[in-house]
Amino acid sequence: MSTPRPGGRSARVVASVHRAVVDLISRGDLDITISAVAHEAGVNPTSIYRRWGTRDQLVLDATAAHLRRNSSTPDTGSLRGDLLDWIADVEHNLGTPEGRALLRTLTTADDSPGHARDVLRHFGDITTVLDRAGQRQENPPTPDQVLDRILAPLTLRTLFDLPVPEGYGRHLVEGLLASASKVPEQPDPVAGHI
Amino acid sequence: MSTPRPGGRSARVVASVHRAVVDLISRGDLDITISAVAHEAGVNPTSIYRRWGTRDQLVLDATAAHLRRNSSTPDTGSLRGDLLDWIADVEHNLGTPEGRALLRTLTTADDSPGHARDVLRHFGDITTVLDRAGQRQENPPTPDQVLDRILAPLTLRTLFDLPVPEGYGRHLVEGLLASASKVPEQPDPVAGHI
Repeated sequence: MSTPRPGGRSARVVASVHRAVVDLISRGDLDITISAVAHEAGVNPTSIYRRWGTRDQLVLDATAAHLRRNSSTPDTGSLRGDLLDWIADVEHNLGTPEGRALLRTLTTADDSPGHARDVLRHFGDITTVLDRAGQRQENPPTPDQVLDRILAPLTLRTLFDLPVPEGYGRHLVEGLLASASKVPEQPDPVAGHI
Repeated sequence: MSTPRPGGRSARVVASVHRAVVDLISRGDLDITISAVAHEAGVNPTSIYRRWGTRDQLVLDATAAHLRRNSSTPDTGSLRGDLLDWIADVEHNLGTPEGRALLRTLTTADDSPGHARDVLRHFGDITTVLDRAGQRQENPPTPDQVLDRILAPLTLRTLFDLPVPEGYGRHLVEGLLASASKVPEQPDPVAGHI
């Protein structure tokens, strides 16, 4: 898919189609069709098929764009500060009915390994945060550890409507940083493979 | 919902309706309707509405019953042994296309807080395992810690089709046990609330 010129007609179509997808999902329509999106956006279904190909590609693209717009890449000067800023953003995004509905849609939108991982990256550019911490010799966790220890518990509680208490994101970040600061007691046979 | 007599007509209806739900979901129909289930099970839709009330209640009940049938409550004599047996079962269940489809359906089936947590319990009677470990003075983790540290990473990877390497469940169990065996470095402000 080519990137449309900002402000051109093509960019306006992309923006209105993206907004239609997010609006429909936010209103509870988890099983949206291309014709429903076309109707909501006021564009021809053919334009949608031509640009996005399939319904799942459209949902993934629109959801990823929405998450990107709502995520920042914090740069506070310390790993702890960056992770705390980042998780506050993620908690805020997932805490809305819209965020929860988008997350649920993501988990059913595509079966191709790798696609969802690409989308996960749009919860914020966490890789840049970890790279910068490495340059500062802060011994940062791996992206997989951030996924497993911080993002997974938060998203699972969001998906299943379990309680997310005040300060829960901070609790997850501190837990990961505390275990990273300890000397490992035994070699980890899996760490090299995930 | 009253429990049907085993072997009676009512029990046969429940079994065939449950099987129809699991079969339809396993074949990729994530947005099943009561009429589709009635057709697949060969029963009258009215019987389904009378017993289950709504489509979401039916899906939750059928999915929970299926997970219960596929889960055991290990009793190896040690917390580590029990957790390793349990996570092997969970990995096996979630590793099939059927298990992945059921998990995805669960996350979109109901918005009522508490319902999904009841279903999570059917990943195996993990509470009994933890209680027994407590009686043996093994200082077991809390159910919330098991959810966050073991079940969440595994289910998130399953939902998003991320790789689940061989030995991953064991890796999660050992990580949780290792951090439980350390003296906490600071009071945990959230632990009492989750």
